[in-house]
This record gives sequence, C-alpha cells and structure tokens, in this order.
Amino acid sequence: MRENPFRTGLEQSRRSEPVTVVIFGATGDLTRRKLLPALLSLFRAGVTRLQVVGFARRSWGTEGFRERAHEYLADAPDVSDEQRSAFIQTLTYVESSFDDEAGYRNLAEGLTGNCLYYLSTPPASYEAIIHGLGRAGLAEDGDGFRRIIVEKPFGRDLASAQALNAVLAEHFREDQIYRIDHYLGKETVQNIMLMRFGNGIFEPIWNHRYIDHVQITVSERLGLEGRGNYYDSSGALRDMVQNHMFQLLTLTAMEPPTDLGADSIRDEKVKVVRAVRPIGADAIESHTVRAQYDGGRVDGEPVPGYLDEEGVPAGSHTESYVALKVFIDSWRWSGIPFYLRTGKRLRRKVSEIAVTFREPPLKLYANRHPTMNRNTLIIRIQPEEGITLRVNTKIPGYTFDMRPVNVDFAYGSAFGAATLEAYERLLFDAMVGDSTLYTRRDEIEASWRFVDGILAAWNRSDRPPHRYAPGSSGPDAADKMLTADGRRWRRL
Amino acid sequence: MRENPFRTGLEQSRRSEPVTVVIFGATGDLTRRKLLPALLSLFRAGVTRLQVVGFARRSWGTEGFRERAHEYLADAPDVSDEQRSAFIQTLTYVESSFDDEAGYRNLAEGLTGNCLYYLSTPPASYEAIIHGLGRAGLAEDGDGFRRIIVEKPFGRDLASAQALNAVLAEHFREDQIYRIDHYLGKETVQNIMLMRFGNGIFEPIWNHRYIDHVQITVSERLGLEGRGNYYDSSGALRDMVQNHMFQLLTLTAMEPPTDLGADSIRDEKVKVVRAVRPIGADAIESHTVRAQYDGGRVDGEPVPGYLDEEGVPAGSHTESYVALKVFIDSWRWSGIPFYLRTGKRLRRKVSEIAVTFREPPLKLYANRHPTMNRNTLIIRIQPEEGITLRVNTKIPGYTFDMRPVNVDFAYGSAFGAATLEAYERLLFDAMVGDSTLYTRRDEIEASWRFVDGILAAWNRSDRPPHRYAPGSSGPDAADKMLTADGRRWRRL
Repeated sequence: MRENPFRTGLEQSRRSEPVTVVIFGATGDLTRRKLLPALLSLFRAGVTRLQVVGFARRSWGTEGFRERAHEYLADAPDVSDEQRSAFIQTLTYVESSFDDEAGYRNLAEGLTGNCLYYLSTPPASYEAIIHGLGRAGLAEDGDGFRRIIVEKPFGRDLASAQALNAVLAEHFREDQIYRIDHYLGKETVQNIMLMRFGNGIFEPIWNHRYIDHVQITVSERLGLEGRGNYYDSSGALRDMVQNHMFQLLTLTAMEPPTDLGADSIRDEKVKVVRAVRPIGADAIESHTVRAQYDGGRVDGEPVPGYLDEEGVPAGSHTESYVALKVFIDSWRWSGIPFYLRTGKRLRRKVSEIAVTFREPPLKLYANRHPTMNRNTLIIRIQPEEGITLRVNTKIPGYTFDMRPVNVDFAYGSAFGAATLEAYERLLFDAMVGDSTLYTRRDEIEASWRFVDGILAAWNRSDRPPHRYAPGSSGPDAADKMLTADGRRWRRL
Repeated sequence: MRENPFRTGLEQSRRSEPVTVVIFGATGDLTRRKLLPALLSLFRAGVTRLQVVGFARRSWGTEGFRERAHEYLADAPDVSDEQRSAFIQTLTYVESSFDDEAGYRNLAEGLTGNCLYYLSTPPASYEAIIHGLGRAGLAEDGDGFRRIIVEKPFGRDLASAQALNAVLAEHFREDQIYRIDHYLGKETVQNIMLMRFGNGIFEPIWNHRYIDHVQITVSERLGLEGRGNYYDSSGALRDMVQNHMFQLLTLTAMEPPTDLGADSIRDEKVKVVRAVRPIGADAIESHTVRAQYDGGRVDGEPVPGYLDEEGVPAGSHTESYVALKVFIDSWRWSGIPFYLRTGKRLRRKVSEIAVTFREPPLKLYANRHPTMNRNTLIIRIQPEEGITLRVNTKIPGYTFDMRPVNVDFAYGSAFGAATLEAYERLLFDAMVGDSTLYTRRDEIEASWRFVDGILAAWNRSDRPPHRYAPGSSGPDAADKMLTADGRRWRRL
C-alpha cells in the first residue's frame, strides 16, 4: 500500500518531484480565474517544482500566454514581483486543435518527468483530448507519472458518463484519473470527516437511533447569469445534486473507513450512493419537487423569470430548483430522511449540512416551541465556514424554561487564516498522487443512475415544474413535503 | 402529588401567598450582604407580598433595623427610592437572646399567615432557635405554612449532622426543612440538569462507555482572610467537598429523574452519594491528597503560609487543599474516576466540571498531542458561567492534521442579563415550597459518612499535609495522583 500523504503532509510535499502541468483549454476562463492563481500559489509556497504548458487553439504563443498570465496574476496576493516573474517564466504554450495529432506530437517533444494533464475545456472536447494523449503515447507512465484531471461536469447522464469512463479507460488506468468536484476542495467538507471520525462524541449518536433527519442545502442568490443555454440543458439535479450534494451526502452518511487511504474512503462513499433508495414513478410526486423561479424584484431590482432568461427555450421544464427526500437503506440510516434542496435565485447563498437529533425520550422541561427540543449540528460551508451546535439551555430567572442557543465555531475566527483555495488543494493532491478528494468511476456512475431515475420519471410526468418567487426560500411544494412529515426546512 | 412550580414558573409566583420572613441573626453579615438585598429584589419584582422580621440579641429595635436597612440597601441596583422605602416599611425587629422563651412569645404575637424562618446565626445557636420555635408552637402550620431555612454548614461530621437533623425532626416535618447549599442557587448548576436532560445528544454518551474521566474543580485565590479560627476547625474537605462539590458531583452523575419534582430529583442525587465508594485507610494515600499552602508572594505581595495565618494553631494538620479520586460504583459509572480538587490560595478562582470523553476507537488522524484527541465538555460556573465543548477540527492547509478548538457558549453574552442571585432564587423557592435546590436529610448524612471516613483515615495517618506554593495550581502530589493514571489536571 502506498504511503498516505495526508499522514505526512507538508513533509511529503517538500519531497515531491518536479511536475509539468498541461492545461487543455489554457485560453479559457477557468485558467485565468482559478488554475493560474492556484499554480502560482503552489509555486510560491515551494511545495513543488512546477512547469506549466498551455494547450489551446488560439494562436497566443508562449509570449502571448506569458503576457496574459502577467495580466491575470497582477493582483495575486502575498507574492513578490520576482516570484510572479519566476513562475511565469515556467509557462510555455502549444497551439493546436484538440483533434490534431501534430499538436500532441509537439507537446510530447518538450515533456519529460511527471505530467499532470488538466482538461479545462468544454466537455465536448474531452474525448478528443483523451484519445490525442493516448495515441501520442502520453498516457503511459515513462520517466515519471502521467495523470489526468477531468473537470466537471462528468457526463450528463449515466450513458454519457459511462462512455467517457470507457474512453478514459482505453488509455489511462483508474489510478491515473482524477475526476474533479470542486466542492470537495473546501476545507469544511474535508472537515466533516475529521469532525465525525476525529472526535469521540459524535459517532456514537450518528445513526438512526439518535438522529431525526438531515437537511442538506446548497442555495444561490444568482440566476442564470447569461449561461441559460448551458443551464437549460442541465438543470439543478444534474448541475448540483449528482455531484456536489451527493458528495455532502456521502461524507455525512459514510461508515468510518479503515484508514485514510483514498480507496478506503471512496469505498465507503460509494457504499452510501449504492444504498440510496431509487426514486421511481411511484415516489416522484411525494419525494421530489422541481421548480422554476418567476420574474419579479430582488432587492428592488427587476429580475427575469427562468423562462424569460436568455437561452432558455419557451416551455422548458428544466428545474432551477430541486428538493428531494432521500432514504439510505443501510443499517445505520434505515428510516431516516435526508432532505436535499438546491436552487438558483433564492433568498440567500447558503451551503450547509444540518443534522437534527431526536428529542430526549422524556420531556422533562417546559418549552413553548416543542420542536425546539431537538438539537441540531450545523456544518456550515457558506457563507462562513464553521460548525454550530444548537443546544438547549436554561433561561435565566425563576423558571426552568429552556431556550435553544447556538454554540459556535468559525474557521476564520479560530485560525485567523484564509482557508486554502479549493483548486490549490486539488492540484496539490493530484501532484502527490492522492485521489481521496476526487470521485471514482463507480461512485460517479452510481450517482448518475439515481439521477437518471428521477429524470426519467419527471419526463414521463405531465406535471409542469412548480413556481417560486425570486428571492424566496423556494416553492410551497417543498415546504409541504416536509410539513407532511411533521418537519420544516431551516430558514434560508 | 403537589404541583411542580418549575412547570408554571412566574405564573405560580404571582399567585403565591403573602409571606413573613423571620431572620434569626438579623444583625449579622449575611443579612446585610445577601438576605436584605435578595428580599428587596423579590419585593421589587412583585413576586410575593413580603414582611420581614429581624430576630437578634442586639437592642436595635424596629427603627434601628430600618435605619441600617436604608444604609445597607443604598446601592441596590434597579430600584427606586419609593420601592426601597416601601420594602423597608415592612421590616420589624424582635430583640431577644436565642434561648429566651419570652422572645419567641413576642415573635408569635405578630405572626400570622405563611412564615419562613431563616437561621442566619452561627451553627452553635441553631439548636436553641429550633427548640425555641418548636416550644412556642411556631413550627406548626396554622393559618399558613411554616418553613425553616438552615444555613450552611450543616454539622461538622456525621454525628453532629445527625444530631441537628434529630432536633429539627422533633419540631418540623422534613418537607418544612430547607437546608441551604448556596452553590445550588447558581444558574449554571441548575443548567447542568437541563443540559443533560433537555438535550437529546448528551445522555447517550454520558456513561462509562464514552467518558474517560471527570474533573471537578473549585479553586480560590484568597487565603483565610481572617477566618483562621473557624477554618482550621473545618478544612477544605468539610468546607467545600461535603457540600458544594458533592452537589456538583451528584448533578453530573445522577440518573434522569422520572419528573422534576423535588423528591424525584433528590432521590436520584442521594443514590449517587450512596454509590460513592468509601475511601478508607487502604486507599487514603492513593486516592486523597491533603495539603497546606506555604508563605510567599502572590502578584508581588507577600502572603503568609497557612500555618502562619492568624487563628491557626502551630502544627495544625488541617488541609487548605484537598484532591480526591472518587469512584461511583453504579452501572453507569463503573470504573470511571471523578477527580475532585478544591483549595485556597491557588492560581485562579475557578469553579467547573470538565467531562473528558474517550478517544475515538480508531485513531485515523495525526495529532502531535496524543491526549488532545479526547473531547471535553466543560461546564463553567466561574469565572464566566457557560459551556465549552472542546472538539477536534482540521488545521487549514495541505495536511489532515487536527487541532482542538473550543466551541463556546457564555450565559452573559447569550442572554444579555445578569444571572439571578443565588439567595434570591433560594428564598423564592422556599416561599413557593420547592425544595429541589435544597439538600435532603439522607443526602447530607450520606455525604458526611463519606467525608468522615477520609477524616478518620487522615487522623490515623502520621503523614503531615503536603505543601504547595501560594498562587500555584496545587501540590505536586495531586499532579502525581493523575499522572499515575495517565491523565493530568486541566490548567487552572
């Protein structure tokens, strides 16, 4: 078994070999906003010796790529002019279309040692690039490792995800493949595991005997922001549930792994996804809510409805909001609902997991709000990363009435340091060969299988999506789904 | 079964009958510092219609008592001049020695309705007062209740406590008797029960399977402050352990009561005291540490050693510090040590209960401080009342190292109101007939039985008390008692 770099951390990183990062789609937005800043930060921190190759169609040339990099990185924090220039000196550029074999031959000429390929293009080009790399012999470990990072989305249904996996498997071994889900780079999401398994007090009560239900929320204030064309072909279920929300679900629900090795952790995660009860036609009305936002005003500004957004075809049924009631048919979670909701144009931008515990078996204390007897542990991801435990305490005074109070911990205030950028962490992990935070083939396919079932049932249904007001907490139907169970959503 | 006033709280209080409070020892310090301010506050809050009778030897007369009350209450907060004057108009005074039957006849003349007797004299006078009340027929419920509050200390060993209980039982029924332990008036101590039994998440892990050990600390910075004569005849074990610390111990260790009735709660508390394993001669060296402070400097000021304090006889073995290792032989607590420590002239004034949980069964995460893997729940009573939960979180950055952080709740900051003064609460409870926060006969006698065993073993031992430096955290011997078990005291 390979040494686990998490155990050795920075020590390991100082020993890491030089690596060349090849960015396919180097002229794109992700390169500018995320990849170059993250690579600069890694370069500056000295965690690895880096070279960066841009690969794209535009005729920028190495000089043009470097000039733009100077521009993109002008505002990079905590970096000297010398460090920035030294980093940019490592940049080179290969001009090529993605299906031109000559381009891959050019690339191969300059490549030695460890290589990390980053697919930062639209998904339509993935297949061509993977074949291009494979046919040029660039997928084979030679004098160093060859690894490939595949940006999301990874497929748009089970069939397309399987097809992409098949193309990857033609040229790369599974341990060379790093499927990104950028939520997994977040500190707090990693912290879920440490919180659950690094403390003695949570795991004993982390099961159906003590937990009443779990709510996972990923809400956004923004609408489509010009991405109507892409978004309408996807929808909230594909865009957020299949990947991000399932990551949060699996981290919350997984069994303790036997060790922190990437495959031990991913084995446990995929077990959860496989245990998620499919939602078919019989449950589609009671266990799912899909909805679209109406037009209206948010903070006094007029905003268009979903169907009036640019790029959205008339009569589209694509959901900008989805709420699900999910059961995990495992020994630990039998009978405990996991309520998931995500949507655009909602009241607030929030990402959180809220674990609500059962009431004490004997209600000794008076409480004017009966459901407040329940304790809740909230793992906040946005807006302020941290943990909140909602406990009941005594109201000062003559009575024994109780009131819930929040016991809080915020990462920012406790450590006084910005948390690590997701892309920086993910790139670092791929460089040192740790795939824990990346998604494995079986997990991706299992989550698509679940999502496909819902999509098929929606397609067979003639009920149009529910509506919700812009800036609201979502459609009434989602509220009703919980009140029917005697529960309610946390306030957004 | 009587209605439980905790359930009805202030509603109940508004219906409470008028009551006359008779203070024996009305010219003393406690009356000035605590009783009159607490009674004024109750009067001002309108929770009951009050009359106050002072009973003492000095020839103050009603006018003299009122004049002094004006003086004592001049700085009372949140009260108007009118309210203060109206309260003081209810004060009357009976001049009598405590063994003069005529005094009690005088007292009886003016007394009608509900009466609450408060023994605020030195303990030597308790017996005379109880007999005086009984013989004058003042112990019998007539046109209202007759209740008696007995200040601490309640006895100085099992025999004297039993004797005092016998005298009380000659004239009063047990349900008329209110034995005070002022720590029990504190909000946080009451909150221990609500925290344990009003939340669903603590009780499942509140036992020997998940708890490693418990530390209860009541430390003081001050020395004897002129009370050497009294203190040397008592010592830390009698002065703090038998009463306050045993209250904290029982509240921490008790089983859930079947309801919040006073006797249901006290039944559970006394079960704990009875299950405390006696410490006899065989365990006296390994399970107890007694010590005296040396002279030296604290904050640059010279302070005398215990043996040089005024009123302490040469060669005294009375302990100004005691540490105990206590086992509760019950199903829940079998094998789990409760470490108790209390002392004077220590580093800081602290009162707290710290429950340390076991480590996770599998140590997945690296930690440079192995014992920090343990979670601790700290119930703070002083200096700042509140709750702290020590949990492990991830250190931001590339590794999966963890670090413990404190998740905090302080009563002051959450409610923005001063917590209720202990005496105000205790007087109110006695007025409405709730004895939950008072100590029952069987509990007092059981705790004295435990303390007597240790005192006897100490007396038979020829080892003098250990020494500790003033302003320190206590004697080395106390540290060794824990390190021998692979544990250590929390930092004072």
